[in-house]
This record gives sequence, structure tokens and C-alpha cells, in this order.
Amino acid sequence: MDALHRGGVAFQAECGAQGTCGRCVVQILSGQCEWPGSELLAAEKRKEGFILSCQARVKGDLVVKIPETISESSPAGTNRCPVPEVEAVAPSELSPLSKKVALELAPLSAGENASDLDRLARCFTGEGEVRYSLSVLRSLPEAVRQSQGQITITLAEDGTSKHLLKLEPGVQTARHFGVACDIGTTTVALQIVDLNTGRVIDTAGDYNGQIECGADVISRILYARKPERLEELRQRVVRTVNSLLDATLPRQGIGAEEITCAVFSGNTTMIHLLLGINPRHIREEPYVPALKTPPMLSAGELQLHLWPEAAVFFTPAVGSYVGGDITAGVLCTQVHRAGHGTTLFMDIGTNGELVLSGEDWMVSCACSAGPAFEGVGISCGMRAAAGAIETVDIEAGGAAIAYQVIGGGSPRGICGSGLIELVAGLFTRGIIGRDGRFNEAKADKRVRLDEHPRTFVLVEAGQTSTGKPISLSERDIANLMRAKAAIYSACGLFLKKVGLTCADIDRVYIAGGFGCHLDIQKAITIGLFPETDPGRFEYLGNTSLQGACLALLSHAHRQRLAEIAKRMTYIDLSSETDYAHEYTAALFLPHTDDSLFPGVMKSLRGRWSKRRHTPHFIELCF
Amino acid sequence: MDALHRGGVAFQAECGAQGTCGRCVVQILSGQCEWPGSELLAAEKRKEGFILSCQARVKGDLVVKIPETISESSPAGTNRCPVPEVEAVAPSELSPLSKKVALELAPLSAGENASDLDRLARCFTGEGEVRYSLSVLRSLPEAVRQSQGQITITLAEDGTSKHLLKLEPGVQTARHFGVACDIGTTTVALQIVDLNTGRVIDTAGDYNGQIECGADVISRILYARKPERLEELRQRVVRTVNSLLDATLPRQGIGAEEITCAVFSGNTTMIHLLLGINPRHIREEPYVPALKTPPMLSAGELQLHLWPEAAVFFTPAVGSYVGGDITAGVLCTQVHRAGHGTTLFMDIGTNGELVLSGEDWMVSCACSAGPAFEGVGISCGMRAAAGAIETVDIEAGGAAIAYQVIGGGSPRGICGSGLIELVAGLFTRGIIGRDGRFNEAKADKRVRLDEHPRTFVLVEAGQTSTGKPISLSERDIANLMRAKAAIYSACGLFLKKVGLTCADIDRVYIAGGFGCHLDIQKAITIGLFPETDPGRFEYLGNTSLQGACLALLSHAHRQRLAEIAKRMTYIDLSSETDYAHEYTAALFLPHTDDSLFPGVMKSLRGRWSKRRHTPHFIELCF
Repeated sequence: MDALHRGGVAFQAECGAQGTCGRCVVQILSGQCEWPGSELLAAEKRKEGFILSCQARVKGDLVVKIPETISESSPAGTNRCPVPEVEAVAPSELSPLSKKVALELAPLSAGENASDLDRLARCFTGEGEVRYSLSVLRSLPEAVRQSQGQITITLAEDGTSKHLLKLEPGVQTARHFGVACDIGTTTVALQIVDLNTGRVIDTAGDYNGQIECGADVISRILYARKPERLEELRQRVVRTVNSLLDATLPRQGIGAEEITCAVFSGNTTMIHLLLGINPRHIREEPYVPALKTPPMLSAGELQLHLWPEAAVFFTPAVGSYVGGDITAGVLCTQVHRAGHGTTLFMDIGTNGELVLSGEDWMVSCACSAGPAFEGVGISCGMRAAAGAIETVDIEAGGAAIAYQVIGGGSPRGICGSGLIELVAGLFTRGIIGRDGRFNEAKADKRVRLDEHPRTFVLVEAGQTSTGKPISLSERDIANLMRAKAAIYSACGLFLKKVGLTCADIDRVYIAGGFGCHLDIQKAITIGLFPETDPGRFEYLGNTSLQGACLALLSHAHRQRLAEIAKRMTYIDLSSETDYAHEYTAALFLPHTDDSLFPGVMKSLRGRWSKRRHTPHFIELCF
Repeated sequence: MDALHRGGVAFQAECGAQGTCGRCVVQILSGQCEWPGSELLAAEKRKEGFILSCQARVKGDLVVKIPETISESSPAGTNRCPVPEVEAVAPSELSPLSKKVALELAPLSAGENASDLDRLARCFTGEGEVRYSLSVLRSLPEAVRQSQGQITITLAEDGTSKHLLKLEPGVQTARHFGVACDIGTTTVALQIVDLNTGRVIDTAGDYNGQIECGADVISRILYARKPERLEELRQRVVRTVNSLLDATLPRQGIGAEEITCAVFSGNTTMIHLLLGINPRHIREEPYVPALKTPPMLSAGELQLHLWPEAAVFFTPAVGSYVGGDITAGVLCTQVHRAGHGTTLFMDIGTNGELVLSGEDWMVSCACSAGPAFEGVGISCGMRAAAGAIETVDIEAGGAAIAYQVIGGGSPRGICGSGLIELVAGLFTRGIIGRDGRFNEAKADKRVRLDEHPRTFVLVEAGQTSTGKPISLSERDIANLMRAKAAIYSACGLFLKKVGLTCADIDRVYIAGGFGCHLDIQKAITIGLFPETDPGRFEYLGNTSLQGACLALLSHAHRQRLAEIAKRMTYIDLSSETDYAHEYTAALFLPHTDDSLFPGVMKSLRGRWSKRRHTPHFIELCF
């Protein structure tokens, strides 16, 4: 597997090279390698030379055949991604992470015997300690002379001291930029921000380059056990961030050296990996991370393509399983302001995190949902980016289908919101049953019952940009159902632990990379969200990114983040014995317990009764 | 010249590639290069293809003949060097730049939800801000677990904050080391110090790798005008320091990663070059350096072969021409303590710096002496290192000569103290006259009147370690006389400006790299020092290095350095119209004005009269 990675063969070893997912199967045509065998491969396949590359030790030169499925699973490239509008910071409230100030240094008196640095330091008299980096010192003599003492400094506050990041001759305050970046387990998104206006100039996203080494945080942690693989993961995510920067900055006419600050937000494991810190203790009792909030670092230390002294701030984490992405998300919901009643914040990513807040309390939990809603593990799934089908409307009888594509044109795949609408449509039209399997009686020409797994063709090959059909298989539906069951069951158990019911929730904030729009009613229909008035829901999009952007722009928001992290408590659901039971019960559409979805069931029964049959119930087997 | 440097051809372009010293002459055998010509080379030589390589532009491939004089002028290699004993810091007063502390982290309570960093940070509660570097964070998870919470931290105080430099599992306080380093224009010396005992473990020195690019600070500044040459100078001195570290640390069984702090001391230009900061404004009116005292930096930033996070402290400078080497020197003299009367501190290096101190004042000046007393520009000169002749005793008549060699064995060259004794001996024995030229009437077999320049052979070829004779030419003597005249005239003018005479000075401290011992009387005889009671003099050796060592060991000394730098005022002698006159008058042995050296003259007249002739006076022409 290491050799395949080095050779640039892209595949998604979901399990983190544990030998359990079977995604890295290749066929040895000649040469020797040792491997212990695996039940994932039939004896026949093993005889033909198929191996799990993550488990094999190469004993000499090999000729290897890479299955088509591997080479085709490479994630889509860098792309502008749609993000709901960020809540603006009012110009009067702008206090970005780095501050640009034009100064006129007083001329030196004759015989004063002061250095350039002394002259500069006088500007900070009484303002506490100022730290100067070597690169700033190197630029000092020319900068102070080029415009007769007129200079522009860029500063960041770091604890009780100030850090001088950059020195430019003349007045250079007109251009001042920063970056907000969300490091998700599956996707990375960033924004270029004009720090003078608070305006987001550009947004871009891509799959996290680490997904080839594991699909979720646990498999990444396992992959990172060897120091060289920890370093590989670090380099992979840094490359993803840098390729997004390299793509966005030139198209906006901004130089990398003009970016003097950045805020990163991500789950605790992702931040450990970005920093090259071994995250192993996150998954070992008592689940203690190396750090919850890194100190301010420099872009150069992290090898980011920004001004090397750029200040890098991290949104604070609550613990091993509730990271800085969640504090950033809660910041966006504004629940830290008074008078919001009881709110539920749900961030649906590869991990699902939930936060319940009242007037003076805030409690969180986490569950592992998998990356299905981000398009990973779904045959035609993709990120919410150009070419993704984001809405699907299946007409009665399943004959006609309407869909919308992000950015218009021919579709390339389906993103999270499209997948929810498609599954909801297939379910309400009776094309799939409550177990997520195709209803043979209702199968029209779009349902390919002879394929394995059985598949629903949403868009025929001729109408897609890839030349291949866009379809959803029973296996894909099962994946999506597992994801929604994880979220729903965590939510139910969490409410129970806190002693609340759905009716007690005044407002539900939904975060995630589903796309620009999310049809809440359809998400309730498939049982992703608990049934309550859809009007109480608000879809906020990628709140980790938006929260990072708020922190980039405002000191008050940075302080608020610290308060949120301090106030939030954490409930560990993984130790709950009820969890497995709740999860299994949620592996139906919308749920095995109809009483939890009375509205959905009533509407469906009405619809189905007209058609004189009811979708069957059968035992689930995945 | 750049190509020769890259090719490893070592020569000393004293003038800093200005085309004025003629040290870089090579002969073009074939190929083309452009150059403007130079009066330094006779027309005949130019026709033969001789060029000044620093002025030439290569136009294609060249075949170049490098004169023997160039390839032989390569300075002697790394060597242990003799340094007078450093004044010890009492164990009770030890407070080194980096501090090692063994800590036992309190175990985590169940469900406490704290990170490793939180656990560590608790140890600093109420102690102000602590800064953590990325490399320390990376070592955190393993360090805190390896010995059940028992760790050793290494800290440095930087202004109002603390900087955590290193984290080790277990109790590791027994080994704790630092480095003191003097960056001289001509020589670099360093000491490895045991920070637990304050004991100097090893001392080593070498020529500054920059001397191939200029003999003094002005020629280095000129050389550094191009950015790539500034970088070349930076790399050269860093290489010198690193080669000293690479030579000393292994022989003491100390790993580079065990050195967690260093103090550097040097003149203002040397420190600029070590940091890669353009020093050009040091020689341009109004002579403003980029900085007088760099902030604390890390060894990694400076590319030193130490623990990358090692704290690097710089002794503070007073101005462009009185650097941190002088404040370190004054620290060694202890004149900052009360009750010392009026003292004169003279640091004789490539630059000479003088400091006069009274009870509540301290005034300094500087002059350019050249590197003659450090053995550079003297045909058989060398640093005070193994193989150097450090004492010379010429018996009456000049027949028998006794000398001592540092480290014993056959001599390789003569160091500063040996040169002073040799010139004094030649002068008092009448072998050279007051103009420094050989007295033909007194020339015995050791004086080679037929050579050009005329030469005195101190050690015949068969008795040296190089197989070549060790001798002193009239040109060498002229160089030494220029150096001593620069020091003496600066001293005279300085005293006059301050309104003092020699008689007012209670104590004279001499610093420099002459060797272990310096014969004060002989230095007075040649007119290097003003004539006063030799008992008032004290030779301290390399005080820049010793002061750096004191600063390494004690916080009180670091504070004292800052006070010294703040208190010391500076007089610019270069603007004095009397200086040229005073200098010319001092270009005699001991001086044109006998009344300044009544004791020396009386003794000499007594000696000479016995021999019925008096050394002649002739016009000086160098």
C-alpha cells in the first residue's frame, strides 16, 4: 500500500490499513510478497494472486494489476464549493486576527545612537511585549528607509504579547487578507477573506488527501501509528490545503505573501494530524488528546503556502471527540447569546456531533456516521461542488424525475442533499421499502434488478458529464441508512440522557456539507432528523468554516469561542449500552417505531393506501 | 572570485572584493573574461593574463592558474585554543539562560476531560505566559506517558513570558549544557559549559570563515552589498560555528540536542551578518545599525547545530562600532561594581575598542586596527592556538633566541603575544630601528637583507612543523606598527577628549586574542599601550567569550549587560581632525614623541649607549 501511495495510485483505504475494508485489493501478476491472508478474499481469489495491499510485505520487485475500481475511485479535484452566506461581521466590529497599521517613525535626532529596531520599538511604548521574528528583522533596514520612515506593520496579538508578522515600506493598509479553513475528515474547505471589509472573496473545497489512508478518524489514528505514516498524513492534508490556496489566490490576484493570518477549524484528530502530533491516545482510554487547542503557530512551521510568519489560530476543542469545528459551529448559531430557549445543534459530517444548549448550559456528544452524506462510499456520491445533483424530485409512479445540478450543465454525481432527496423520493414513491430494498413490484425500467447490487438509475449515461450513468445501489442506500441511523440514534439517546424530548427543543440548527440547500422535511422522512415542526429547523451549511471565518474577523468572536469551549460539557455515548439497540432500531425508513414519526407515517399511509399495496417489511441484512 | 570561492579556493580578499587589496590575483591561461584593469597590476603582468578575480566578469569557460601564495594563505584549522580562566559564577548564583526542571504531572481525575497540554500547563499556573513550540507539542503525548507523568522540562525566560524549549520523559536534570560563543571579525571562539556546575568543559576557536571575503568590518559590509553575498557571509560564519560545535561536542560525549541555550557575543556588524541582516547602514551616515540587540532567537532559525529550539541570547551592543563584545568585556572587568576608581578597558581585535569608566560614567570609542595581532596579514602569523610561538626572548646581540610554543612541539607560526615580544626584542636589541626597518649595521645571519621584503628568520625551516622558516619581514613589522599606532593614537585622543591623562587611570584592562600571556612591558616598549606602571595593567584574554559565558550562567549578569549597554556613551573619533596626525606620530617605536615614553626611552638609551651607536631615524614610507 505504501508503494502504491508513493506511485500516486489513489484509493480509499477506508479502514486505515487495518485489513478490514478490502478497498486496497490488487492482483500480483509476478514477484513475491508475504501476507497473512484474509477472510475478505475467497480462496479462489487468493489463488489468482489477489491480496490486500495494506497487509502485504513486499519481498522483491512485483508486477501488480490495479483493479479498475481502485483507479476510478479517485476523488474529484479542487473546486469552488457552494456555501451558504457567512454571517457578516459589521465593519465597526472588525478586529481581525492580524492587524495592519501604518506608522511614521520619528526621525532620529543627531547623535541619538538608536538602531532601526529602537526606532520601531518606540511605537509600542507601554503596549507590552512585542516579539520580532528573524525575517522581520531582516527586512527592517530597507523597510524603514525606503519611504522615509513611513512603514506598515502587520501584528497579531498572542496572549499578553504582540507578534510583529510583517514590515512593509510605505502605506500598505489597503490590501489585507486572511484565510479561514475547515479541515474535515472527508473534505477540506477554505475561504479567502478581505480583512478590511470582512467580505469573503473566494471559497474552495476538496476532499481531504488523507481519505486514501482511512475513511474516518479511527482508521486515520490507526494508520498514523507508524511515525512515517503520521508524517504522510500530515503532508497529505497540508498538500490539500496548499492546493486550495494555490488555486484560489492567483484567480483573485492575491499573492500568498499577502495572507498574514489564518484560522483553522477541525475535529481534534484532524488538528493533531495537521500539526504532526500523534493522535493515538484519542482512541485509547481515557481518551486524552495531546492538546485541545494548539497555541498560535506560524504558517511557515505548518508548511502552508502563506506569508511564513502568518499567524495561525485554531478554534478550541472541547475534548477528543468534540473538536474546534463544533465550537466554531456553535459560534455560528449564536446560541451563546441570551434568549434562544433550548436549541439543538447537529453537525453532520463523517463524525456527527450534537450540542444541546439552554440559557446557562451546553452539553455535547458525538457519534461516528461515516462519510456517506459527503459522497464517500456511495458509488456516484460526490462533494457539494460543481456538477453535483443537489435536488431530486421523483414524480408519482417514478416515471419522470427532475433534478438540479450545482453550477448547471450535465451532472457528475450526487451530493448529500441530493442523496437525501433521492432516498426520500424512492421511499415515498414506494420504489424502495422501509428496509431500503427495491420493491420488485414497483420496479420500472430505472430499477436494474439483474445487477448486483441492484441499482436505480437516476441519470442515464448519455446525459452525464462522465459518460457513465448516475445511479444508486441497494448497497449505497444501506450505507446512507447506516449514517442516518447513527445520527438519529445518537440524537435520541442524547435527549434521553439530558432528560428532554423533541418537543422541548425550540430550535434545531443543522450543519454539514450537504450543499446550498437541504430539504428538512425529506431528511425527516428518511429518519435522519427527529420529527418536529420543520419550521423550527435551520440549515446553516459548513459552520466549521463559517465559525473559523468569524474568528478570523473578530476578537470578540475569538473570545466567545474560548467561552463556548469552556462552558461545553461532554457526554460519552459510546459507553451507553442502549446505543446498539437504538442504532439497530433506526436502520429502517424512517424508523422501526412508527410512533416517533407520526406525521411521516400518516402521510405515507395515505399515499400508499391509494395505491392498494403497502411496502413490505423484511429482515435487514447488511 | 565567486567561482573560486565556490570551488573551495581559500584566499583572503582583505578589501571585501573592492579591487584594492590585490589578494585575489590569478592568471588566466585560456578563456575570456572582462575586467576594467587595475593600477595594482603592472602592465606587463596584465599582458601575461593576471587579473584581480574580484573585479572580473567571466565570459565563458576559463582555465585559471592560482598563485601559490593564495593556496597557501588558507587559515589554520579548528583547534583548541588557550583562554585565560573564566571568572566562575558561584554555584549559588547560577541561573543559566535555560533552566531544567523535573516535574511530576498530577494524574488525571476520571472524566476530567483535560488534554496532555492542560496537564502540563497546570504546572505554570500563575507564572505568566508560557510559549510552546510545535516540536515540543509533538513530543508531548509520549513524554508525559513514558514515565507515568514524570517529565523534565527545559525553559527559557524571554521578556515577560516563558518559552518551553524541550520536554523529556523522566528525570533528566543531571545533564544540562550551554554554549558561549564570541564571533570576532577574524576569529571565532566558543566554550561548552556545564550549566549545572558553571564549569567550562571545552574551548575551541578557528578563523571566521568570512575572512576570505574581507579583512575587516568595512570590507565585509562592502562585500555584503549583494543579497547573495550577504547570504554567503551568513553561511560562512554559521559554518565556522557549526564546525567548532561538531568538533567539540563529540569529544566531550555531548549530543548537539543536549545544548538548550547559547549566548553570542560579537561586534555589531558580525551579529548582523550572523543573522543575515544587511549591515550597510553601519558604514553610512548617520551610522544607524538595524539593531543593537537582537531579541532571543532559536538555534534552528540560525541553522546552528544545537537543539533546534535552543534559546539564543545576544549580548547587547551600544552602537554601530561598539558591539556586544564590548559590553561582555566590560562585564568581565567588573567595573560596573562600585569602588574601582577610573579604569580603562582596551579590547584589541581587528577593531580596537576602548572604554573609560568612572564611578558613575562609562564612555567608549572605537578604531580600526586590522587583524595583525590575530596573525592575519603577517606572513608567519597565526591565531593563539597549538603550534603558535607565544613568547620570544632575543638575547643581547640577537645571537640566541628562546621561544615557547603553545602546546609544545615544533612551532607553526607566531601569535599576537609572540609578535609583540619579537618586535620588542628586535627593537631593544637594535636589530630594527625606530622606523621598524632593519638596521644594516646590526644585521647578523638571521636578517636576510637580500630578500624582498627584508626578513628576520626566527626559526629555521628544519625546526618548524611546516618545513618552512618562521620569519618576520619589514612588511609584517610595518603592519604591526600600523595596528599599534591605530590603538595608541585612539587611546591618546580618547583620553584627551575626556580630559584625562594616563596618570588618572587607576587600572587598565587588556582584552584580546593575543594568547594566554601578554608581556605588558614589551607591549609598552613597542608603543601599543601608553606608558604607565605595568602593575596597573591586567590582561584578561578573550573577554567577549568570557562575558558571553557569564551571561549564559547568570541572570544577574544578563541584567548587568543591559545596564552596561544603557549607561555607556560613545565618542566618534573618526570625525576628529587630530586623528590622522596622532596616528602618523604613533607610527614609530615607541612613538615620535619621546616624552610620552620616558621610561622606555631611558632604558633604551642606557642599553644603546653601551653599544656605542643609536638606531637611526629615517623618514617612514610604507
